[in-house]
Amino acid sequence: MNALETMTVAVLGGTGPQGRGLARRFAAAGLRVVIGSRDAARAAEAASALAATGAVRGTDNEQAAAAGDIVVIAVPWEGHGALLASLAPALAGKVVVDCVNPLGFDKQGAFALVVEEGSALQQAAALLPDSRVVGAFHNVSAILLEDPDVTSIDTDVLVLGDDREATDLIQELASRVPGMRGVYGGRSRNAHQVEAFTANLISINRRYKAHSGLRITDV
Amino acid sequence: MNALETMTVAVLGGTGPQGRGLARRFAAAGLRVVIGSRDAARAAEAASALAATGAVRGTDNEQAAAAGDIVVIAVPWEGHGALLASLAPALAGKVVVDCVNPLGFDKQGAFALVVEEGSALQQAAALLPDSRVVGAFHNVSAILLEDPDVTSIDTDVLVLGDDREATDLIQELASRVPGMRGVYGGRSRNAHQVEAFTANLISINRRYKAHSGLRITDV
Repeated sequence: MNALETMTVAVLGGTGPQGRGLARRFAAAGLRVVIGSRDAARAAEAASALAATGAVRGTDNEQAAAAGDIVVIAVPWEGHGALLASLAPALAGKVVVDCVNPLGFDKQGAFALVVEEGSALQQAAALLPDSRVVGAFHNVSAILLEDPDVTSIDTDVLVLGDDREATDLIQELASRVPGMRGVYGGRSRNAHQVEAFTANLISINRRYKAHSGLRITDV
Repeated sequence: MNALETMTVAVLGGTGPQGRGLARRFAAAGLRVVIGSRDAARAAEAASALAATGAVRGTDNEQAAAAGDIVVIAVPWEGHGALLASLAPALAGKVVVDCVNPLGFDKQGAFALVVEEGSALQQAAALLPDSRVVGAFHNVSAILLEDPDVTSIDTDVLVLGDDREATDLIQELASRVPGMRGVYGGRSRNAHQVEAFTANLISINRRYKAHSGLRITDV
């Protein structure tokens, strides 16, 4: 696999808070970033807003998918399956990083949704048999990612998947962001609980008025 | 609710590694501990082994349940439902702390089992309608708990449940153990992923040769 420096990172759903925030951090880390959105004009707008941060351009999701060596999926859960199914040819051979959390919300806060395939990551792997699918960045606060005054993101990023070379690469990607550390988090079959754990962090944020993250100790 | 100092902590399944380890730490923190086991003689033996650590006695699970103000459930998942069903009257009115992780194991490591009620905690709550059921201590390494040379356990303990007074008490219990910190982790409906996350920690331990735990940042 090529070195991270030579790669383009595409962020699909890059006009939402999580996508915008990750695009900002990858660009600030010196990586070439392409924001994808259903609406190419909105993607271009989000990219311009990051012009001072680094090399970011915007286009539609399909062109962004084609441009990326690493393609981060940051769309809402509702659109996850349909988008990936439509982009399967464009994503063939690429490292696809799923950071989608299938969550529901009600008066009592957030809760994990049941996913037929087990998790968003496993759904992605089923829809993209020719891609190298990895899960990561599930638990990172979009508010911190997007805040230009936050210079260091104090969290570990659990990277999940069954392709060692791909998980190693995405651990390296995460570790390029100041404060973040990419930690191997287990196989795809253990992704559900990492996605669902975002509901717990939302509960914690509410109770403690925090933007919580997690660290793995003794690693 | 009474102060923690005046309470007795019973640990059912207290002859297994997790139960023995927790009994050791609670006793070392100055609390009165009763180890319960199916076999009262084995419980008494485990208690004698901790005689130098603090006030620990051993008896059968039913008598331990009756003796505890706080009753920690540390039995294997296989025996969880049957034990709790049989002890429901003895556990009425008590704070029951479930730390059971429904996990399966195969050549590729650990994975989360599907639990009909959603989680071990929700199963306990369904079987013990007259108890105050809380989830905690799921992710703490038994190896560290049991090691007398480890003087501080570097981990947060996520405490889950729908009874605020009970979760507050168990956060305080966790925080009595040097290094540990009890952090509110969400409602019972969000317990599954915390239990299942132990499978990820087992994967992490294997990859990094560690005894991993977790910390919540910004709290």
